[in-house]
Amino acid sequence: MSGTISHLSHHVYFWLKNPESKEDVAQLIRGVKTLTTIETIKGFHIATPAATEERGVIDNSYSVSWLAFFDNEADEHVYQTHATHLKFIADCEHLWSKVTVYDSVQTAE
Amino acid sequence: MSGTISHLSHHVYFWLKNPESKEDVAQLIRGVKTLTTIETIKGFHIATPAATEERGVIDNSYSVSWLAFFDNEADEHVYQTHATHLKFIADCEHLWSKVTVYDSVQTAE
Repeated sequence: MSGTISHLSHHVYFWLKNPESKEDVAQLIRGVKTLTTIETIKGFHIATPAATEERGVIDNSYSVSWLAFFDNEADEHVYQTHATHLKFIADCEHLWSKVTVYDSVQTAE
Repeated sequence: MSGTISHLSHHVYFWLKNPESKEDVAQLIRGVKTLTTIETIKGFHIATPAATEERGVIDNSYSVSWLAFFDNEADEHVYQTHATHLKFIADCEHLWSKVTVYDSVQTAE
């Protein structure tokens, strides 16, 4: 984890084809770490499910959580189309079976 | 948004019974804001779906995003059982139809 909480949060959850494979999880995390060099990222958090108590509302079925903060939508667009991001997808997309992304912007109120 | 990115991210997405009701959204956001006073929260981000480009992997069907950071699981437990949190649930749970929570801890690697 590093950096600052900014206007736009980009939170990606990865479900792997082989979630039991520690090597696959490690490979994905290594890939995600390359994303942190993209200059428009203001803060980030690379994580796996916490061992918090089981509750019906908690989804802990994913393998890796990738959270990045951006100052605005334009900065996130730079990230989406950045060569480092495209290389990450090319190198790692064979590992995952599902990806869910939530992009959220700070409320004005 | 405020504070720092810490070890444990607690990200909650709320789907409302009446997502078209601006008043319901505003009431939920006011409720979420009361949570920020809980002393074990190290950083937070209160948000709504961003207007980023439509892609199949993006879920923008929720109404409100509540992201809080904690130093550890014990601090999150303090939050879960805190009177302010319980009051928030009691005051606002009639507003939502679904809540999904992702608790994630920073990778050691």
